[in-house]
Amino acid sequence: MLKSYTEEAKKYGVIEITLEGPADGNPFADHWVKGTFESTSETKNVEGFYDGNGIYKVRCMPSFEEKYCCRIVTDWGDAEEVTVSVGAAEEGNHGPVRVASAFHFSYDDGTVYYPVGTTCYVWHLQPEAVRKDTYESLAKLPFNKIRFCIFPKHYDYNLREPELYPYILRADSPWKPSDFQEETLKAMPRNELGGIPATVGDPEKVWDFMRFNPDYFARIEQDIMRLGKMGIEADLILLHPYDRWGFSHLTEEEENFYLKYIVNRFSAFHNVWWAMANEYDLFFDKPLSQWESNAAVVCRQDPYRHLRSIHNCMTMYDHTRAWITHCSIQRIDLYRTAENTDIWRTQFGKPCVLDEIAYEGDIPYGWGNISGEEMTRRFWEAYVRGGYGQHGETYLCDEEILWWSHGGKIKGTSPERIAFLKKIMEENGGYMDPVQEIFDETVGTNVHPGSHPNKPCTMYYYGANRPSSRPFFFDGKPVDVELIDTWNMTVTPAGRFSGRFNVPFPARPYMAARVTEV
Amino acid sequence: MLKSYTEEAKKYGVIEITLEGPADGNPFADHWVKGTFESTSETKNVEGFYDGNGIYKVRCMPSFEEKYCCRIVTDWGDAEEVTVSVGAAEEGNHGPVRVASAFHFSYDDGTVYYPVGTTCYVWHLQPEAVRKDTYESLAKLPFNKIRFCIFPKHYDYNLREPELYPYILRADSPWKPSDFQEETLKAMPRNELGGIPATVGDPEKVWDFMRFNPDYFARIEQDIMRLGKMGIEADLILLHPYDRWGFSHLTEEEENFYLKYIVNRFSAFHNVWWAMANEYDLFFDKPLSQWESNAAVVCRQDPYRHLRSIHNCMTMYDHTRAWITHCSIQRIDLYRTAENTDIWRTQFGKPCVLDEIAYEGDIPYGWGNISGEEMTRRFWEAYVRGGYGQHGETYLCDEEILWWSHGGKIKGTSPERIAFLKKIMEENGGYMDPVQEIFDETVGTNVHPGSHPNKPCTMYYYGANRPSSRPFFFDGKPVDVELIDTWNMTVTPAGRFSGRFNVPFPARPYMAARVTEV
Repeated sequence: MLKSYTEEAKKYGVIEITLEGPADGNPFADHWVKGTFESTSETKNVEGFYDGNGIYKVRCMPSFEEKYCCRIVTDWGDAEEVTVSVGAAEEGNHGPVRVASAFHFSYDDGTVYYPVGTTCYVWHLQPEAVRKDTYESLAKLPFNKIRFCIFPKHYDYNLREPELYPYILRADSPWKPSDFQEETLKAMPRNELGGIPATVGDPEKVWDFMRFNPDYFARIEQDIMRLGKMGIEADLILLHPYDRWGFSHLTEEEENFYLKYIVNRFSAFHNVWWAMANEYDLFFDKPLSQWESNAAVVCRQDPYRHLRSIHNCMTMYDHTRAWITHCSIQRIDLYRTAENTDIWRTQFGKPCVLDEIAYEGDIPYGWGNISGEEMTRRFWEAYVRGGYGQHGETYLCDEEILWWSHGGKIKGTSPERIAFLKKIMEENGGYMDPVQEIFDETVGTNVHPGSHPNKPCTMYYYGANRPSSRPFFFDGKPVDVELIDTWNMTVTPAGRFSGRFNVPFPARPYMAARVTEV
Repeated sequence: MLKSYTEEAKKYGVIEITLEGPADGNPFADHWVKGTFESTSETKNVEGFYDGNGIYKVRCMPSFEEKYCCRIVTDWGDAEEVTVSVGAAEEGNHGPVRVASAFHFSYDDGTVYYPVGTTCYVWHLQPEAVRKDTYESLAKLPFNKIRFCIFPKHYDYNLREPELYPYILRADSPWKPSDFQEETLKAMPRNELGGIPATVGDPEKVWDFMRFNPDYFARIEQDIMRLGKMGIEADLILLHPYDRWGFSHLTEEEENFYLKYIVNRFSAFHNVWWAMANEYDLFFDKPLSQWESNAAVVCRQDPYRHLRSIHNCMTMYDHTRAWITHCSIQRIDLYRTAENTDIWRTQFGKPCVLDEIAYEGDIPYGWGNISGEEMTRRFWEAYVRGGYGQHGETYLCDEEILWWSHGGKIKGTSPERIAFLKKIMEENGGYMDPVQEIFDETVGTNVHPGSHPNKPCTMYYYGANRPSSRPFFFDGKPVDVELIDTWNMTVTPAGRFSGRFNVPFPARPYMAARVTEV
């Protein structure tokens, strides 16, 4: 029975149709609801999902400002039809992000998108005061993408039980959340990765993996929508191995079932990305075939073709797989991190988003103690080589609130510089592609087919090297040279030149030069 | 006719026998002199050399405190025999450096040798005041090896004509040294490598490549001897491509002739190493076969088996070649420099001396503007990975005296820290071999067969990473842990531990930990 539907829909917004249906048995598994959304220019066939209390929902993201005829059918014989007029997109909503110019991105409406992301694994599961801080931080920070996990996270500094769980606890569960005290967990021995796998005992006796907790997912979707309004992409990590509840040990059937629910529920939000896993290679009992089967579910259920990738720890996934839209990379070398961006572009032929290039901070873990200078340097290397860095922060503090997992407040020095880089990226416009790495110089340009720069330029980046001058040769029109201090965030004109010329440099680290044809 | 001979010879010193002989024609090419030096324990067959003015010399380095019967024969019928008693080696003279424990070095008498080198390409050809500064600097610095060129060098900051030349100018030479004015040269266009090949015109018309200038080589051997007394190895670069006189364009015959002269003249000095070339791959007109033929000459003429290597620019020589005793490496990646030491050890199976890992300085060239922190970091990476860094410095100054080429005074901050590292190396003793690189840690140990440590230990190096603590696991005897601040040059005991334990760190860059079994 139709309960409600979106009367004022917007392009790239959500048409949501709510029905009342059967609540007995296990509605998640026993029933289905499907929708066809048809306008002059498109037809979307989607599946809905059960939201608890006898409520079923079907969602669709319209891509055109047209009239949509929405037809719903169900397995219990209910069928509904409504017509919805779709108006102009809300200001700032440019639709889902797509791959553009082979190695880059734009929104669906053609607006250029430069991913400048950050990682806060389970910020959404934190107490309200921390969540408030996170939103306040994000409002001031340059980040337009945030990577976070659907499932709760178990790891050092992540030992408090979450307020909600994604599954319903079985009535006869031998384990209760109160069995886990933070202090007890702190004292438990754990493996090198910080994990205590399935401390709940046999997860199948604790949880019903065919029955979701709709409140858990409703909260996440509120956050996805709020992020969307802030212009921030929600890079959703669908599975991760940092687990003590058994959520990283689902069977293939359970995992497929979960992913179907996730995609049916979230895919109508313009700003979601699907990260199939964080560190897939730390799921030691999962065969590669299960990742492929998971990916097939996501591809089948998502009619909008949201961006899809899978993130490694030590061994990269084969990013040439057709279902992978872009490489979500964790650096695999201690010294060459963002410096490998152009190599990965060549290897995989796809955009490279360096989702983990270590964290600015001071924790004992070997991946979490680089300086703000080094984080900034890695972002610049990524940019000039035609890829995109991703921020993360792990500074210790008494409250053990680390941005990396919890969000909260920023302590580091790199975000301000990343904001400066983002300004430069926007000022340059177009897409940066690598030219060469030679001695102390990394060189890129935004002048190439498929790029539409505001400021057609060649960028030279010098990292920690400190030349006191540099010869250039431009055989053609005169050029304007600007020196960019990427750490002190200044842009200084060095003059107009042509032919062979020499530019004095300040012999400081973290300099770049921008050369623009007049 | 016998003119003189060394009456009081010393082990690892030089027995020199001087004869008078024919001075007409071209004695360098027309005549030969040979010697057999026989003691109870060894027989050395050597060739002598012409030193100008009718003087011929034959030299031998005795390795035993025994009586040596020295027999000289010549092509002009002169034959001489003298007996020389060889006494104990001079204090501090441990003989030539040899490869030890596969990847390391010791002197001939078994004393451990850790190469801690510096590069001053043509310090010996500088004006007397600069040479004096160089010697004063070397007396205070930690370096026990200096790399320098036999031939004069042409390059930026190296445009003054030398006072002497290695060959005699032909009487009818169309070119005269006065044709070259520093200011004229500065204004000349040059290639990317800074070179102006053979600005003398046709070198064969300018020089007689079969006729040496003995004064030129006499001056070098004075320096070799003086360095020897200071405990410094003379790593002689026999050929290099930075040239405007034609010395880098000798024919194979001329080059073989030159090398024979060099080796006959210098090989009796205990502290020489043969660097067949600097940046052999920048001699664009020389086939690989010529390097092999050159190496064969050096092997044949040198009965003492001094260390031999060949240094690359972009492409490493095949260091597995039998005549190569150790790898003389220039880094071939902008980011992984000393970090590849263990990889090269595995690849070539020989000691790795990183003769160029960039220069501390601020010059425009991409290889010459790293910081003192970075130079120090590269030395530590090399050490913990079982190899050896080499220093160099290129700070600009008004006088254009740069340590890298001219010697003079040191301006940088790394030598003091390299001296500190050398102290740590000696304190540890034995030979450091790599254990692993993992996350932010490089680990090495001096506990292995062939190593005889003073302080058997495992060294952990963290580079620019800044952990605030680190867990360790030592399943056995208790261990002492010391924290080493490699930049501030302090060693701080952290305590005695066993089993699993956690050590607080200061969350500063450039820390190392030394763990010693009690």
